[in-house]
Amino acid sequence: MDLGVTDKVKPLIDAVRNFIEAEVAPLDAEYHAEVGNNPANDRFQLNDRQIAILDELKGKAKAKGLWNFWLTDSDRGYGLTTVEYAYLAEEMGKVGIAAEVFNCSAPDTGNMEVLERYGTDAHKERWLGRLLEGEIRSAYVMTEPGVASSDAAQLSFEAKKDGDEYVLNGEKWWISGAGDPRCGVYIVMACTDPDAPKHARHTMFVMDADTPGIEVLRPMEVFGHDDAPHGHMHLRFTDVRVPADAVVLGEGRGFEVAQGRLGPGRIHHCMRAIGQAEKALELMCQRGLAREAFGKKIATLGANYDIIANARMEIEMARLLCLKAAHMMDTVGVREAQPWISQIKVVAPLMATKVVDESMQMHGAAGISQDFPLARMYTNLRTLRFADGPDAVHRRQVARAELRKYTNEKI
Amino acid sequence: MDLGVTDKVKPLIDAVRNFIEAEVAPLDAEYHAEVGNNPANDRFQLNDRQIAILDELKGKAKAKGLWNFWLTDSDRGYGLTTVEYAYLAEEMGKVGIAAEVFNCSAPDTGNMEVLERYGTDAHKERWLGRLLEGEIRSAYVMTEPGVASSDAAQLSFEAKKDGDEYVLNGEKWWISGAGDPRCGVYIVMACTDPDAPKHARHTMFVMDADTPGIEVLRPMEVFGHDDAPHGHMHLRFTDVRVPADAVVLGEGRGFEVAQGRLGPGRIHHCMRAIGQAEKALELMCQRGLAREAFGKKIATLGANYDIIANARMEIEMARLLCLKAAHMMDTVGVREAQPWISQIKVVAPLMATKVVDESMQMHGAAGISQDFPLARMYTNLRTLRFADGPDAVHRRQVARAELRKYTNEKI
Amino acid sequence: MDLGVTDKVKPLIDAVRNFIEAEVAPLDAEYHAEVGNNPANDRFQLNDRQIAILDELKGKAKAKGLWNFWLTDSDRGYGLTTVEYAYLAEEMGKVGIAAEVFNCSAPDTGNMEVLERYGTDAHKERWLGRLLEGEIRSAYVMTEPGVASSDAAQLSFEAKKDGDEYVLNGEKWWISGAGDPRCGVYIVMACTDPDAPKHARHTMFVMDADTPGIEVLRPMEVFGHDDAPHGHMHLRFTDVRVPADAVVLGEGRGFEVAQGRLGPGRIHHCMRAIGQAEKALELMCQRGLAREAFGKKIATLGANYDIIANARMEIEMARLLCLKAAHMMDTVGVREAQPWISQIKVVAPLMATKVVDESMQMHGAAGISQDFPLARMYTNLRTLRFADGPDAVHRRQVARAELRKYTNEKI
Amino acid sequence: MDLGVTDKVKPLIDAVRNFIEAEVAPLDAEYHAEVGNNPANDRFQLNDRQIAILDELKGKAKAKGLWNFWLTDSDRGYGLTTVEYAYLAEEMGKVGIAAEVFNCSAPDTGNMEVLERYGTDAHKERWLGRLLEGEIRSAYVMTEPGVASSDAAQLSFEAKKDGDEYVLNGEKWWISGAGDPRCGVYIVMACTDPDAPKHARHTMFVMDADTPGIEVLRPMEVFGHDDAPHGHMHLRFTDVRVPADAVVLGEGRGFEVAQGRLGPGRIHHCMRAIGQAEKALELMCQRGLAREAFGKKIATLGANYDIIANARMEIEMARLLCLKAAHMMDTVGVREAQPWISQIKVVAPLMATKVVDESMQMHGAAGISQDFPLARMYTNLRTLRFADGPDAVHRRQVARAELRKYTNEKI
Repeated sequence: MDLGVTDKVKPLIDAVRNFIEAEVAPLDAEYHAEVGNNPANDRFQLNDRQIAILDELKGKAKAKGLWNFWLTDSDRGYGLTTVEYAYLAEEMGKVGIAAEVFNCSAPDTGNMEVLERYGTDAHKERWLGRLLEGEIRSAYVMTEPGVASSDAAQLSFEAKKDGDEYVLNGEKWWISGAGDPRCGVYIVMACTDPDAPKHARHTMFVMDADTPGIEVLRPMEVFGHDDAPHGHMHLRFTDVRVPADAVVLGEGRGFEVAQGRLGPGRIHHCMRAIGQAEKALELMCQRGLAREAFGKKIATLGANYDIIANARMEIEMARLLCLKAAHMMDTVGVREAQPWISQIKVVAPLMATKVVDESMQMHGAAGISQDFPLARMYTNLRTLRFADGPDAVHRRQVARAELRKYTNEKI
Repeated sequence: MDLGVTDKVKPLIDAVRNFIEAEVAPLDAEYHAEVGNNPANDRFQLNDRQIAILDELKGKAKAKGLWNFWLTDSDRGYGLTTVEYAYLAEEMGKVGIAAEVFNCSAPDTGNMEVLERYGTDAHKERWLGRLLEGEIRSAYVMTEPGVASSDAAQLSFEAKKDGDEYVLNGEKWWISGAGDPRCGVYIVMACTDPDAPKHARHTMFVMDADTPGIEVLRPMEVFGHDDAPHGHMHLRFTDVRVPADAVVLGEGRGFEVAQGRLGPGRIHHCMRAIGQAEKALELMCQRGLAREAFGKKIATLGANYDIIANARMEIEMARLLCLKAAHMMDTVGVREAQPWISQIKVVAPLMATKVVDESMQMHGAAGISQDFPLARMYTNLRTLRFADGPDAVHRRQVARAELRKYTNEKI
Repeated sequence: MDLGVTDKVKPLIDAVRNFIEAEVAPLDAEYHAEVGNNPANDRFQLNDRQIAILDELKGKAKAKGLWNFWLTDSDRGYGLTTVEYAYLAEEMGKVGIAAEVFNCSAPDTGNMEVLERYGTDAHKERWLGRLLEGEIRSAYVMTEPGVASSDAAQLSFEAKKDGDEYVLNGEKWWISGAGDPRCGVYIVMACTDPDAPKHARHTMFVMDADTPGIEVLRPMEVFGHDDAPHGHMHLRFTDVRVPADAVVLGEGRGFEVAQGRLGPGRIHHCMRAIGQAEKALELMCQRGLAREAFGKKIATLGANYDIIANARMEIEMARLLCLKAAHMMDTVGVREAQPWISQIKVVAPLMATKVVDESMQMHGAAGISQDFPLARMYTNLRTLRFADGPDAVHRRQVARAELRKYTNEKI
Repeated sequence: MDLGVTDKVKPLIDAVRNFIEAEVAPLDAEYHAEVGNNPANDRFQLNDRQIAILDELKGKAKAKGLWNFWLTDSDRGYGLTTVEYAYLAEEMGKVGIAAEVFNCSAPDTGNMEVLERYGTDAHKERWLGRLLEGEIRSAYVMTEPGVASSDAAQLSFEAKKDGDEYVLNGEKWWISGAGDPRCGVYIVMACTDPDAPKHARHTMFVMDADTPGIEVLRPMEVFGHDDAPHGHMHLRFTDVRVPADAVVLGEGRGFEVAQGRLGPGRIHHCMRAIGQAEKALELMCQRGLAREAFGKKIATLGANYDIIANARMEIEMARLLCLKAAHMMDTVGVREAQPWISQIKVVAPLMATKVVDESMQMHGAAGISQDFPLARMYTNLRTLRFADGPDAVHRRQVARAELRKYTNEKI
């Protein structure tokens, strides 16, 4: 169980870290400052400067071969293991647009995996190539308003067979990335047979984002932020028609696709969360050394040693758990690795929100202000406690896996 | 130690609650939606509709005698005790602009107390009357950038005597309410003698908000929000001249004024925080009963009973502690009540952020969205853990008060 | 809602505190050191010295009128309110045998309440008088091995009618006080009709402790301690015959009696737990001031200010909640006060174990040794998280009471 | 960074686990039941049956080659890495006397390391051989009453040079293993020069346990238990004379020896603590499946899924952190591995006490009784939060190591 930095990934970590520091970080703030700065005053429309920033950074990254690292266990690209990729993803988590610059951002990596693993040749030809090149982006259209997302069997957005087409109707929300005008493809989960057994009711479809009948109702806000231009959109589908070959893997096999997709996606989020926690701890230490009160450095006052130590210990443990989950994915596959993926999905966002929260507190009021990236980190990380399943559902999975060691009864 | 609802305050609680539900709540959202909706597209300028909403609500409240309840221990107004006022403030905490509608909002109540208690007749005539009528608003100008606010002796914004005037220079930030164009008066703490003993270095001044030389540099953001039009402004004073009679209480007595002001101010924040926690628990229960997963009401699933019970217990205890601190203020005065005020200043914001956080989680992703007031509550409450002294400083005060029971040595 | 120290109880608090310090504390250690020091080497047999200590202390207390304070709302004794009694019980909690010295110890107070409230004249004549005089002690025989005590309906110890007698068979355990040779009377809950509705299956009986057929199997140990001579005994009943008039209140009304009994009993435990937490905080402060490390008093090092402050705040809040629960019992009765009793039953033992644990840690290894009372306090308090219902059951009660505010459906 | 089970250690894990289950577990309870069962009624004297049990088990283990695994990085024995040994130590932690059976118990392993690494040939000949054979046991005599053990520079037990001898005077306490009559050798830290720089004041000595002038004052109790016959003894040294060659490594180098000793010792404690946590989780699951309340298995009620999941996640993370610390010891040495050793020293005992505490609670009152091993585990693990440095001191070490990444100033 080698969880360390391999010789293979070591130079890539350095390259990614250096590239982020030298190239991405300086432009990240500018990119965000441009949001909404266009003739239409539309936050979900990229202006020329935003496009130029992304094109420039992606071009440079690609030219250096810093591209598509997430393609683990593949003969394309680097063929890194998930463990190796974890160290890169952690670096990318530290700066806002870094993951996208290396074509390693959510939800694209998960969606590319779906197309790579379950898509037909036609699907791949139409969308996968452009996604791998970073020419378009994508969205994963699953969550629905009005039902507890913790119980996926309740999803009721419908797709009805009509000749050799399907007709889709219903609402979806929290569709991350659907705000971006470059978002070209949707992967959509829909109920094709409400009377089928629980895990055979749903089917996964793939379609152009501009398929007629799809309407953006509004951006969902996260602590009052619309995360433009990425966005978490609330969509309405009205008689949206797709051909039968838009089905991914097969009718009634939506859950199977979803499970295959969510494993890596969840763990990538966690890797980036750990990167953010490291960044927050770094800021905490620097602030603690830079400011004084009562004649002493803040870092040495009161409980601050304990706070710093606890942050270090919790980051260290979460990283190791994340690496172990990655190792399990690499060695026994997503399905068998499920309990570890659920474990890290609970642990990493909780840990990271806590460390960021302590870092904010060590900064005084500046910590929650625009002068530091901490408040933005906090709201992003807090959101992860819902994304891809709330904590409670993952704890339930972990507990049931544990109990099944001791009983053959249904738990 | 009567901490209960008295016969005197019982009908006022009902009246305030009913007025908020019937009159304030329906207009609160509209008021906030109008922010920035004016010809200058300026978020810190009230448009006609905002002014109309405030005027209408304040007029109605005043007409019903629901006004200036915070004037405890006074022959003006109701002469409520702080304990009695606590029950009213809790209600006001539940809806955004409610406290202002009853002329009971921060920072005005604290500033009015300063003028009432320490101001000269001239001060009172010039500003107190209009504040009591709700015609103008006010700001308390204390916190400075660049120093740890936990150690107030570091405050270095200077006021130099020049003939019969003082000349003020320096920066202040997080000046809440200074964004509002109706803000007419500033109470400003400045260092008049850096070589004096630690608690005799500073002097409190009162002045018009539009005194020449005061410049608003920018609004400080709280989790990315500017809280317009109220605002938490970053100010620069350049050769601001005020007459010698702008001094409150006496030169070198700034700390004395600050302590007298902060006691009630801190406890009022806590009362309103408890109101928000109650609101969040109410929403949590309603959501838990309204949604189902795995065939059961969410409230009955997993750890949710425990989460609801813990919220109830923690609110109950924080309220009792807040009432006890209020009782101490009523009976032994602000100075002697200090340890209890510090206690509740730590407890209430922490408790309320935790309850709101759990309530968000029970709501699924909707909980952090614009569809519920929880995310806004969270960021407001989180800010309280810095305002009027960070948690660590108050814990330090509580601990030292405890240790002094057992030693005469300096702790 | 007066939760304060009344004029009536003020002198009693002083008298009790002084008596404990002057009379009880010096003999408490000696009493415990004598355990097992008798010809039979039997830890559950009192020797002459133990009896002499108890007789002497009880005689002195009774002579001073410091006796039976728990008789709230009664024309016998002081007629204190439960709120007033809380302040006395807190003092008694601080020293091992103090509660017994004032005839205010568990389980006797609860059992006397049962006899007083539900007993026949014959029951009172036979047992209540001697209990009120402190001549005998008692046990409450409810908990059974082999079933989850959280679900009382599972209790299966049986009592079968046989003519004008009942015949009792089965095992009971954790019968506190049944080890003491002075224990003269048992109040026993037995299942008289397993087919009746859930809360009508059980009946409460009262009988002499030496009724033939009752056998002590073993003392149950608490963290390895037998708590001799009090003891928490494991009993077996084999064809134990009692007359029909041993029934308390009526056949099938066992639950009603249990509920009436458990309210006060639970709250008394909590009051004493708060006293122990106060004692532990006192020891923590004294140790923190007495020892130095790295050239400073331990109390001022690291997180210790925070630990002391948190202890003070948590004790303060738990006491207020306990007083509120007592106030509810005084004003609306045990049944309506149930949610608050469950709240404090969760809060007080958890808070007290936490404070004691922190106090141990502040003492270094001495804290868990025989040189300080902390380890003994810890194990006693930890036990309270099971006694009279585990935390989870009380949280469940609190949550359901909360949810019932928002629904008429069965929760 | 391979943290997994290697091919080399895999069969050893199985052999150790099987041997413990088949041979040690059945005799462990009997061994403890015999404590004090001897003519002198002396708990610190082994009777024939105790000696027979130990001899039999040790003989069998040695015959199977299951012996002295702790000799990492050595050409004697297996030459396991610390990572490999961790998996074995975890198994040994699950049953009371198991570690001793394989000659892998504290404090002997640490003491043997001292003799192996720093001892003279004479030291090795006299004591090391017999320790390696398990013929005698040993004690590490460092902690002193009356000073904060967190600040080792305060240790004042003195050794004065007198000709070619040293004369030792003072008290030591919490000397684990010094109760056992088989304890043959003491390693003693004494102050030889109180005026030297802080880390050059102390010297380490090795001597026979029965050197004249050493007196056992009493056993220190842990939550009321004397842990006989092992014991944590309070010793008094009165004019104890040892020859100059009793010095280990050199005069004034006591701290160096202590640091070298404590690294492995601390981590071995943690490994065994993790084993106990695993055992407690196993018991928790089994109990949760075996008992029902309200018609459901306890494991599925209330927050129990969350409790089980949290236990699993926290054990998993602590194990990984422990393995990483072991890996650091294996690769960069004790000194560089110090921050990780401090981290796991804080994490493992806290985690394990928490899991055991939750397991007790899931068992109801039985959990704290003699019917389950949980209460005994709890008190042992709680003690670890003091042993080899209290949590606060290790957190301080971790924080300072973190801060030194950002400053060259003394922290």
